[in-house]
Amino acid sequence: MTTLSTPGPTLGVVGGGQLGRMLAEAASPLGVDVLVLDPTPDCPASPPARDQVVAEFDDTDAIRELAARSDYLTFEIELADQDALERIERDTGVPCHPKPATLDVIHDKLVQKRALADAGVPVPEFHAVDSPADVADGLEDLGAPAMLKARTGGYDGRGNVPVDHDTDHAAALAEVGGEGNAMLESFVDYERELSVIAVQGDGETAAFPVGENLHRDQILRETVVPARTTDAVRERAREVAFDVLDVLDGRGVYGIELFEHADGRISVNEIAPRPHNSGHWTIEGAQSSQFAQHVRAVLGWPLAATGLRSPTAMANLLGDGTESRDAAIADVDSVLEAPGANLHWYGKHETRPLRKMGHVTCVRTDDGSVGDLLAGARTLRDGIDFR
Amino acid sequence: MTTLSTPGPTLGVVGGGQLGRMLAEAASPLGVDVLVLDPTPDCPASPPARDQVVAEFDDTDAIRELAARSDYLTFEIELADQDALERIERDTGVPCHPKPATLDVIHDKLVQKRALADAGVPVPEFHAVDSPADVADGLEDLGAPAMLKARTGGYDGRGNVPVDHDTDHAAALAEVGGEGNAMLESFVDYERELSVIAVQGDGETAAFPVGENLHRDQILRETVVPARTTDAVRERAREVAFDVLDVLDGRGVYGIELFEHADGRISVNEIAPRPHNSGHWTIEGAQSSQFAQHVRAVLGWPLAATGLRSPTAMANLLGDGTESRDAAIADVDSVLEAPGANLHWYGKHETRPLRKMGHVTCVRTDDGSVGDLLAGARTLRDGIDFR
Repeated sequence: MTTLSTPGPTLGVVGGGQLGRMLAEAASPLGVDVLVLDPTPDCPASPPARDQVVAEFDDTDAIRELAARSDYLTFEIELADQDALERIERDTGVPCHPKPATLDVIHDKLVQKRALADAGVPVPEFHAVDSPADVADGLEDLGAPAMLKARTGGYDGRGNVPVDHDTDHAAALAEVGGEGNAMLESFVDYERELSVIAVQGDGETAAFPVGENLHRDQILRETVVPARTTDAVRERAREVAFDVLDVLDGRGVYGIELFEHADGRISVNEIAPRPHNSGHWTIEGAQSSQFAQHVRAVLGWPLAATGLRSPTAMANLLGDGTESRDAAIADVDSVLEAPGANLHWYGKHETRPLRKMGHVTCVRTDDGSVGDLLAGARTLRDGIDFR
Repeated sequence: MTTLSTPGPTLGVVGGGQLGRMLAEAASPLGVDVLVLDPTPDCPASPPARDQVVAEFDDTDAIRELAARSDYLTFEIELADQDALERIERDTGVPCHPKPATLDVIHDKLVQKRALADAGVPVPEFHAVDSPADVADGLEDLGAPAMLKARTGGYDGRGNVPVDHDTDHAAALAEVGGEGNAMLESFVDYERELSVIAVQGDGETAAFPVGENLHRDQILRETVVPARTTDAVRERAREVAFDVLDVLDGRGVYGIELFEHADGRISVNEIAPRPHNSGHWTIEGAQSSQFAQHVRAVLGWPLAATGLRSPTAMANLLGDGTESRDAAIADVDSVLEAPGANLHWYGKHETRPLRKMGHVTCVRTDDGSVGDLLAGARTLRDGIDFR
């Protein structure tokens, strides 16, 4: 039985980037206060959050302070310190969701893939790799080329290197972080990249409609919903997502990136134990947002409906140029004026090349196709200039 | 040409109740910081706003501080001090919208009705009233019964007294605030109460679809959209709303309450120079919300599309009982679980009888009628118990 009061429950969030900001925006209507911990003063989440603890993500004293001022803990970055969170959860009794142990599984891609494979969840074939000789063995086994991946620390494509029989395997290993920090994964000649935002609630689960992700240079550029594939593939993608939830421990939203193979098979690419960029479309496009669901799930409240309200396209607004500078964009009028378009600015102080600075979400307001919607979102996004 | 940067523009808001809270929630995705001025520490708007200036609404020094820290000023309460705002706007150059002079027109219902009538906007017949003898004269002229209204200070039905030839006119005058503070208005035997949320932008105007308001004891209980009337009446209501905008000075959202007469005529009942309770449905039900539009309008940004996304019903959650107590509601699970339902809790610390504590908005997720939607919203709202 859920009760609301004032002041409402406080959700302490390790990390105060754009995910924390959108969490705070979604928590406020529910009467939930958000407190964030982030080392950057006036971080993106700071304005809509009730308060910010300015501290490094692994500052144990600061996390203790966060816990002391919170009723629940969660994190919006994988950099969160799982050992500290686990200890503090045990010492203070303030529950943390997802469970910090889930970070252990997710941090290390090899451990993650093994856990998924052991549970019968389809994943690309993979090989543990500790030395250049292992890379050669792996290529024999999986076929060439294959993808050498950092086991830990990589994101947005950083830490992934394609390798072949002719590649300098020692150099490739060094590039992804050295021996003992690598795995080899078979190259998936995928038809499409999909993602499912799935929610583990208190004794219930939910999943949003399947999105189609469009990457360039291994960075997400756009998501469109529904994914332009068959009903059977969409259904299978959701089934796989629910199977993934069974492997993970703790309540919350999980972003599950999938490959759709040419033959319609689905395999899991990566999992984020938090709201995910490919779920930003839910704010306007679904009956509830991934952020509101994360708040509800972590607090153990009933989940909301996840149905599609309108076909939707989301386009990331990435920093341009080659150097960092003060964050500002000019002439956003075309986005502000376009029917069905919604601009989200994350409040980052500095533009950096390819940094996620904001996004544009377009919900359908006419009879156009999902492709038209995507083209429209891209045009609006491409019309925005950084200054 | 609209530019976004970090930190974004700061909107200073006089008043930090639920309207300020929802303004702050809507401003954050746009990268706009909200600063509120309110005498209640930790007022409803405080958690999602960047900061609060704790001061009385007419504290000139505090309003100056608000202006010094803001790029634009607005107000979310009619109690805002128009003289102080006008002086501070002039002295500091920080623009205030709507224009403080508009408060002068709206504060005094007699001045408001005269301004509207002079502009050809249909209003119920009215009579200036300064003495008991004027009441008797007015009743001769307008017919009995008629409504004696306080010219200033009344809201949510407070300050309205029906009078007849037999009423003690001196006592009725005293009840609405005494001589010199009254007007007499003909009784409108209306078919329906409607409202239009209209927006005065920078050289453009917009209006949301027409809502139907359901009052009890002169307090708004529910709004449903679209209003259950004819297309012609809805069209006429929007026309009247645009005519009202012509009478008012300054950018922003205006809540325009209308009567639909039995013969289909429309007349203006009351105007609020700010987002209005009858526009809360726009958060989920329209392509943009009245709060996002108010932010855009005050800043002089392009307005957003105002189309209906789904038929929508909004039900207010009013404080019960006869005494004030700590604010808490129990067992909101049925609202949290219902598809299409959205709970908004305002974060007020104290429940008072009939105080607006939150609201529930239901967007249509099936083929039901607007009446079904209203019945559903009422059932959900009535299932919430204050503790």
